[in-house]
Amino acid sequence: MSDPVDSRSSLSDAPTPEPASGHKLTRRGFFAGLGMTGAASVLAACSSADDSAASAGNAGADSGASIRKIDFDGPHQAGIQEDSQTHALVVAFDLKRDGLPSGGLKQNLTRLMRIWTGDARSMTQGKTALADLEHELTVAPQNLTITVGWGPKLIEEVGLLGDAPSWVKKNLDGLPKFKGDKLNDDFGAADVVLQICGDDLTAVSHAARVLTRGGRDYATPKWTQRGFVDSPTGETPRNLLGFKDGTAIPRKEEEYNEFIWDDQGGSAMVVRRIVFDMPAWEQLDRKSREVVFGRHVDTGAPIGGNDEFDPVDLNKAGDDGLPLIDERSHVGITAGEGTHIRRRAYNWDNEVTPLGNSGLIFICFQNDPDKAFTPLQKRLAEKDRLNKWITHVGSAVFWVLPGTQHGAYWGQKILEG
Amino acid sequence: MSDPVDSRSSLSDAPTPEPASGHKLTRRGFFAGLGMTGAASVLAACSSADDSAASAGNAGADSGASIRKIDFDGPHQAGIQEDSQTHALVVAFDLKRDGLPSGGLKQNLTRLMRIWTGDARSMTQGKTALADLEHELTVAPQNLTITVGWGPKLIEEVGLLGDAPSWVKKNLDGLPKFKGDKLNDDFGAADVVLQICGDDLTAVSHAARVLTRGGRDYATPKWTQRGFVDSPTGETPRNLLGFKDGTAIPRKEEEYNEFIWDDQGGSAMVVRRIVFDMPAWEQLDRKSREVVFGRHVDTGAPIGGNDEFDPVDLNKAGDDGLPLIDERSHVGITAGEGTHIRRRAYNWDNEVTPLGNSGLIFICFQNDPDKAFTPLQKRLAEKDRLNKWITHVGSAVFWVLPGTQHGAYWGQKILEG
Repeated sequence: MSDPVDSRSSLSDAPTPEPASGHKLTRRGFFAGLGMTGAASVLAACSSADDSAASAGNAGADSGASIRKIDFDGPHQAGIQEDSQTHALVVAFDLKRDGLPSGGLKQNLTRLMRIWTGDARSMTQGKTALADLEHELTVAPQNLTITVGWGPKLIEEVGLLGDAPSWVKKNLDGLPKFKGDKLNDDFGAADVVLQICGDDLTAVSHAARVLTRGGRDYATPKWTQRGFVDSPTGETPRNLLGFKDGTAIPRKEEEYNEFIWDDQGGSAMVVRRIVFDMPAWEQLDRKSREVVFGRHVDTGAPIGGNDEFDPVDLNKAGDDGLPLIDERSHVGITAGEGTHIRRRAYNWDNEVTPLGNSGLIFICFQNDPDKAFTPLQKRLAEKDRLNKWITHVGSAVFWVLPGTQHGAYWGQKILEG
Repeated sequence: MSDPVDSRSSLSDAPTPEPASGHKLTRRGFFAGLGMTGAASVLAACSSADDSAASAGNAGADSGASIRKIDFDGPHQAGIQEDSQTHALVVAFDLKRDGLPSGGLKQNLTRLMRIWTGDARSMTQGKTALADLEHELTVAPQNLTITVGWGPKLIEEVGLLGDAPSWVKKNLDGLPKFKGDKLNDDFGAADVVLQICGDDLTAVSHAARVLTRGGRDYATPKWTQRGFVDSPTGETPRNLLGFKDGTAIPRKEEEYNEFIWDDQGGSAMVVRRIVFDMPAWEQLDRKSREVVFGRHVDTGAPIGGNDEFDPVDLNKAGDDGLPLIDERSHVGITAGEGTHIRRRAYNWDNEVTPLGNSGLIFICFQNDPDKAFTPLQKRLAEKDRLNKWITHVGSAVFWVLPGTQHGAYWGQKILEG
């Protein structure tokens, strides 16, 4: 085996690129999970000889290095609209309340937001957080995003219901319970959530440690959920049932404005933990699996279609005159509503066991869950054939604060308003 | 946000490359964790215009696609000599013994090896395992390697001690207990181990599920350890204490032949689970941390040196005449022995907690642990300054079987001999 030092140093000499001009519009996240990571840096070496090569993957926008960043500041928080990174670490916290004087909770929430915003702004941009001595672990954020949300109960408790979207006060006790839910508190409501996503798990892990440590006087971790998605051949990532997951999502700016962002530029984050019954699922043949999903396994196309992005037509019938897509299939129920929520689902697995121990962290964003996730999930809970193989065990909802600009901290306008 | 479908399909059309001619010699694994993933496929588009560009990362060897494989067959098992992939999933199994007739255990071990070898050979090469209906999850193995080992007790029980290297019968009860060890059975001895490594966690997870299911009649999972390493800028990966980990490893064929492979082409795999005391570590300033490790944090160079790969000279003194590297530092104790073991350490973390919940899965390979890991660890356990911040909680050792060729299954020669 030859010594890899030479090629190593040729990479490490690459300069740090400027951050993208607006995190909403960058497509670098899309390439991140797709094995396109290093393309940009190598392309830089050959694009002068053949500029057209750079257009092969739109990688020209990302020239110069293997260090990748997503802007922190903007009208909306990062970590929603960008294409999913390969790793997600979602940590829910409860605020400390013992011995606090009146008004103390709001004051502590303010302190926590100040600390976390500063550290998140630094780490996502490849800089060192306050009091962090391991700055080598933040040099390459690799599309690190850190997204914060507040739970409805906390918003009420600190007297800010009037400043939050109206869905918050209608969901003080969390989302409604749906048919078949087997929820446990382990993955339930909490005061604050951090969604930490990135393509480099070391950076994600370090960020979680820095934020937990930085906030330790005010907040204690309540639950942790980890997930991963991969897209080695550049297609939509697959879940652990083998199907593409995330075909129908909003992709246009107008769709985000209409369905995802609320009036203040925030959003509602739903986190559902779903467990798969793998032994039962594995007994289904592929055809049955396709009936359940309403899509083909290989292409992801609606049944009877050829391409993943073919429109879903529930009226299309086969030679026998029967509808090709079963009305109780997953797609049969969700058709047409894919752009109303920004799915950001992640696979999870755990301790390897004989029966399997895996599933999906279904994360979605929308401007009003009462109009998006909740009615849709109600229909799914009643009818979806897939319910036989999946169980929802965790449910939480948070108001994702508007984005930050000009050095502000998360929620500043609301907390100081 | 523009529609990414175009670039997606340009990637998915890429043809599957031929497997490398010999997995030991491929350097593709080195690039795997380094953000070089997609370089090959994009380079293919421009190398005709500028062939020299391909040499920038030796990526020419990997032309044509973003699908990456490491050969399964060879004189040694894959997953040892190749550069570390970004993810490791180590699963230990115990064989089922209830109601087995005399000789039944060896027979079942044979059956298990047959099944697993076939499935591992398929999945690592991007093909579908027997009885697996989710073949889309194995199309892109992304450097998936699956490595098997047997525990000393099992080898004795099936009457094969005479066929195994002599260290096996000297370690029937596992490695010796070292000073400071706080071992628990959760991560201790087991009958069989699978080390599943890869750059795509979905493929790794799926492989673990397929193998566990395929072997369910014969083996039950006992413990699971997951780890990750990242190298975004192409340098040696860092552990969660912030230091480079894996600088001194054998890199030459001769070193592998002398120190890593045993007479049959097998090896000894040591798996130690190490927990970090993060709050205490975080109180150390950088200079103190460097004294503890004997290396600089930033470059990884031995203290007083400039480059990570500078030789470690314990006699080098500073202006004050004192040795630059403390003799009780980690490097002060291990200097000169780095090539005697193939470190393959992975970071782990878990549920986010106030005190942190992370550490290192120290995996190493050598031809004889009694000559490599054990004496070294004895010295470390007695003297290493780092012991104040780390605790070994798991310890296991396995004989890694020789490699397979010509369609043989793991251990065939030994089981049928």
